[in-house]
Amino acid sequence: MMPIDFDPHLTKSFLTIFDLTGTFVFALSGATQATQKRLDFFGVLVLSFAAGNSGGIIRDVMIGAVPPEAIKQWGYLAVSIGAGVITFFWSPLINRIKSPVLLFDAAGLALFAVSGTHKALAYHGGPFAAVLFGTLTAVGGGVVRDVLVGEIPAVLRTDIYAIAAMIGASALVITQELGLPSSIASLIGAALCFGIRLGAMHFGWRLPTAHSRTL
Amino acid sequence: MMPIDFDPHLTKSFLTIFDLTGTFVFALSGATQATQKRLDFFGVLVLSFAAGNSGGIIRDVMIGAVPPEAIKQWGYLAVSIGAGVITFFWSPLINRIKSPVLLFDAAGLALFAVSGTHKALAYHGGPFAAVLFGTLTAVGGGVVRDVLVGEIPAVLRTDIYAIAAMIGASALVITQELGLPSSIASLIGAALCFGIRLGAMHFGWRLPTAHSRTL
Amino acid sequence: MMPIDFDPHLTKSFLTIFDLTGTFVFALSGATQATQKRLDFFGVLVLSFAAGNSGGIIRDVMIGAVPPEAIKQWGYLAVSIGAGVITFFWSPLINRIKSPVLLFDAAGLALFAVSGTHKALAYHGGPFAAVLFGTLTAVGGGVVRDVLVGEIPAVLRTDIYAIAAMIGASALVITQELGLPSSIASLIGAALCFGIRLGAMHFGWRLPTAHSRTL
Repeated sequence: MMPIDFDPHLTKSFLTIFDLTGTFVFALSGATQATQKRLDFFGVLVLSFAAGNSGGIIRDVMIGAVPPEAIKQWGYLAVSIGAGVITFFWSPLINRIKSPVLLFDAAGLALFAVSGTHKALAYHGGPFAAVLFGTLTAVGGGVVRDVLVGEIPAVLRTDIYAIAAMIGASALVITQELGLPSSIASLIGAALCFGIRLGAMHFGWRLPTAHSRTL
Repeated sequence: MMPIDFDPHLTKSFLTIFDLTGTFVFALSGATQATQKRLDFFGVLVLSFAAGNSGGIIRDVMIGAVPPEAIKQWGYLAVSIGAGVITFFWSPLINRIKSPVLLFDAAGLALFAVSGTHKALAYHGGPFAAVLFGTLTAVGGGVVRDVLVGEIPAVLRTDIYAIAAMIGASALVITQELGLPSSIASLIGAALCFGIRLGAMHFGWRLPTAHSRTL
Repeated sequence: MMPIDFDPHLTKSFLTIFDLTGTFVFALSGATQATQKRLDFFGVLVLSFAAGNSGGIIRDVMIGAVPPEAIKQWGYLAVSIGAGVITFFWSPLINRIKSPVLLFDAAGLALFAVSGTHKALAYHGGPFAAVLFGTLTAVGGGVVRDVLVGEIPAVLRTDIYAIAAMIGASALVITQELGLPSSIASLIGAALCFGIRLGAMHFGWRLPTAHSRTL
C-alpha cells in the first residue's frame, strides 16, 4: 500500500460532516420519492432513513466497522427524520425545485463518494479498494431507495452516474497522494463528482447503448 | 452506556425461543406469499428461508456476530423448511385464516423486535442502538420477502408497521432499565408491538399521507 | 466439527480460479440482461459487476472475511468489466447462443457453489454451514441482478435452481470427507450442480406448485 498523507483528526471531522450532509440530502431524495409514491408519514420516514443510510451501512459492514456508524450514532437517525419531516410538511416547497430527487441524489452521490473513500483509507484499504468503496457507498443509498419502491435503480438507468462517483473518488485519492491536504482533496473530489453529474443531467450527456450502436 | 440488569442465561434461551418462533412465523408469511404467487415447491422453501432469516442475518452481520446464527445453527433452516412444507401441503387450511401473511408478519415483527433488541444489548450496544437494531431485525425479513416477489415492502405501504416494532423495542429497553426481569420485559415488548400492529390492522388506524393533507 | 482433509494451497488457487471464472460468467449473465433491458454502456458494466460479485461479497461479509475479496483484489473488477465490454460490443454473437443468461447463470451457479463452500470450510464453518454458504454464494449474484432490473429472481421462479447448488455443495463436502482430494471433490460438485441445472433446463424437469396439486 502506498503511504498516504493523512491527518486523522481533520479526516475524522470532515468524514462526519460529509457523511451527515450526504445522509441529509439522500434522505431528502428518499422522502421526496416517498411523497410522490403517496406513502404515509412513517413510510416517508422509513424511506428517508433507508436512502440516507444504506450506502454508509453497506460500507461499514464491508470494511468491518460494525456496528455501523449510522446505527451507533443517533445523529444519522435524527438527520434522516429531519429530512423526512421537512419534506412531508413542505413538499410543495421542495417540489418547486426542478427534479429534486435527482438534485439531492447528485449532492449525496458526491458527499458519499468522498466519505466512503476516506473511511476505506482510514481502515487501511489500498487506493484501488478505496475508490471502489467510495463508489459503492455513493450508489448504495440510491439503489436501496429505488429497489424499495419498485423502480430500476438510478445507477443502472441514468447516464453517467456511478462513473461520476468513481471519478470523484479517484480525484480524492490522487490529489491526496500528490500531497494536497485531506480537506482540499475532499472538496476537489466532491466538486468533480457533483459537477460531472449535474453536467450530465443538464446537457444530457449520454453513453451509447448496445441497441443504439447497431442502428 | 447505562447499566443493564442482565441475566445472560435467561436472555440466551429467551432470545433463541423468540428468534426461532419469529423465524417460523415469518417463514409462514413468506411461504404463503410464495404459494399465492404460484411459485414451485422449492421456490416456496427459498422464500420461507429468506423471509424467516433475512432480519436475523442482517442484524448479526451488522453487530459483527458472524457467521450469522441462522446459518451456523441447523434449527433455523429446519424451522423455515417446516413452515414451507406445512404451507405448501396445507395451504387451503392456512388460507382460511383471514390475511394470513399479515397475521404471521405481525407476530414475526413482535418476536424479532424483541430478539433483535436483546442481541444488540448482549453485544454491548447502547439503548439507542439496541432499539434501532430491534426495529431493523423486525422489518428486515418482510422487506426481503416483498422485494423478492416484486412488491413494495409492507414497511413502506402499511400504516403503523416499523413504528410498532420501535415501540415494542423501546418498551423492552425501558422496562428492563427500570429493573424488570429480562423475560417479563421481553413479553411486554412483544405484546405491545403485536397489539399495536393488530390494532392498526383491525381498526384501520392510519397515519396521514402528504397528499391527503393538501386536500 | 468433523476433520476435513484439506490442502490450503491447492484449495486457495482452486478457490481463486473458481471464484474468478464464476464472476466472469455471472458478469456475462448480468451484462446480457443489461443489454436486453437497453441499459447504456456504464449501466451494463454496473450490472456486470453486481451480478458477478454480489454472491461473493455476501459470502465474505457473512463469514467475516472483510473487506470482501471482490473489492480488495482488482482482478474481480477487471474480469467483470471484461465481461461487460465483450457483451456490449459483441452482443449479437452472444445472443446467438440460446438463452445465454440462463446458460452463464448455470455455470456461475456451479462455480460459486464450490467456491462458497470451500471458503466457508476454510473459515472453520462446519459441513452444514458450508453447504448453506455455498448455496447462498451461488444464488446471491443472480438474485441481486434480477432484483436490480425489477424481475422476480431466477431462484424463485425457476424450477430446480437453489437445489442444484445445494446438491453440488453437498457433494463437494461429502466426497472431501470421504478422502478425495479437494480439487477432485470440487470438480465433482461443480459438474453435478451444472449438470442438474442444465438437465432441468433442457428436459423441463419441474417441481409441483401448490396450485397444480389442487387441480
